[in-house]
Amino acid sequence: MTRIKLLLEYDGRNYHGFQLQKNANTVQAELEKAIYRLSGEQATLVCAGRTDAGVHAWGQVVAFDSCSTIPGDRWAYALNSQLPEDIQVLESQETRAEFNPRFDALKKCYGYLIYRQKKKATFYRHYALCSTEPLKLEAMQEAAGILKGRQNFRSFCASGSSARTFEREIFRCCLSEKGPYLLLRIEADGFLYNMVRIITGTLLEVGRGKYPPQHLREIIASQDRTRAGPTAPPQGLYLLQVFYP
Amino acid sequence: MTRIKLLLEYDGRNYHGFQLQKNANTVQAELEKAIYRLSGEQATLVCAGRTDAGVHAWGQVVAFDSCSTIPGDRWAYALNSQLPEDIQVLESQETRAEFNPRFDALKKCYGYLIYRQKKKATFYRHYALCSTEPLKLEAMQEAAGILKGRQNFRSFCASGSSARTFEREIFRCCLSEKGPYLLLRIEADGFLYNMVRIITGTLLEVGRGKYPPQHLREIIASQDRTRAGPTAPPQGLYLLQVFYP
Repeated sequence: MTRIKLLLEYDGRNYHGFQLQKNANTVQAELEKAIYRLSGEQATLVCAGRTDAGVHAWGQVVAFDSCSTIPGDRWAYALNSQLPEDIQVLESQETRAEFNPRFDALKKCYGYLIYRQKKKATFYRHYALCSTEPLKLEAMQEAAGILKGRQNFRSFCASGSSARTFEREIFRCCLSEKGPYLLLRIEADGFLYNMVRIITGTLLEVGRGKYPPQHLREIIASQDRTRAGPTAPPQGLYLLQVFYP
Repeated sequence: MTRIKLLLEYDGRNYHGFQLQKNANTVQAELEKAIYRLSGEQATLVCAGRTDAGVHAWGQVVAFDSCSTIPGDRWAYALNSQLPEDIQVLESQETRAEFNPRFDALKKCYGYLIYRQKKKATFYRHYALCSTEPLKLEAMQEAAGILKGRQNFRSFCASGSSARTFEREIFRCCLSEKGPYLLLRIEADGFLYNMVRIITGTLLEVGRGKYPPQHLREIIASQDRTRAGPTAPPQGLYLLQVFYP
């Protein structure tokens, strides 16, 4: 038995998220089907971050066990021959038997993309939040800075989450503007359910001038989801990278 | 009766091209349906460039006649409320009764996008030709330069074309590289059927070293389609802009 680690990217547009679901097409289902076709094995995948319906990945990490003779580094090529075009394995390798993509991660980085121009927005409707509303970027940047550090992020956790603790450490939270693109990058040791999308929705409220950046401190302190902004839509969210020791 | 001119963009991914077809979804069909829903009129659209299945537009221009009371500049807003998300009207205006988007055009500009990186290629599979093969860009640039001027482009015209003359003037034909993107831009007073895609396929053969740039002169002189390179796939092609007096 060998444990195989995969680095993959996928366009989440046509999937009901990563995780297996009955009667819905998911990234995990496609991967497990492809593994079955190659090896005849009913593998069970573990992933670093369970992305929701419509959410994309540039650097998802998954692992599974196999008794097949396919060498670790050939899995990428073999799987790509079986996978739909919108899921692609970038790298594959043999890893240690205990490797868990989720619990072994030191930190993960998510990106949220906003496209701020009317022109060509048609092409971004599944790949960004398209909005031409005026935004106070400096205020948003200041608010983003307030989110850094080890804090209780319960206000940024969707109800229905099974999380037991709400403390997470955000190492990096910053906005960058490049032409019509506005990208929010958040690196943390862990993320609560919908955390990046709720943070984005909250920073957008700051950008609209609904409340000042410093109000983020009150939102955090309240530990109350209803105090934060709305959940930004899934199509702007990307799992960018997962970091391991 | 008023003649309305529209500037529009569309993601050609899900359409069998611009022009009406039986039993196939086209951009023209969607526009005519939307006009009908707004005004009850069976308009007949004329466009600047009939794009093929899978080809995109950032700046298609179309015109139609209407007796409706909708002001020229409101058609954009009205149509967008009825159109699918992958077709959007950027501007609308009243124009003179004789305006013909195709025959009045001084020149048109097409772009062909090549994405040259393995990473994130998943996201470009419907929006570029994705290829990581090594290419001699200087040779391609030189070959592109040879295509400029008024010449007979019969070697770059797909069979089945109804064109009577094959002389066209290319004002601009150049490659630009930016990170993983390679963009070919061609401005001409007119284009033959599949001309940009055959030029792209031919420049790629030069990039691969199959023949030197100067061989383009022989290909042009032969007036023989079989001497030019293969037709590049549709998903990399964009109608960028149409120029009027």
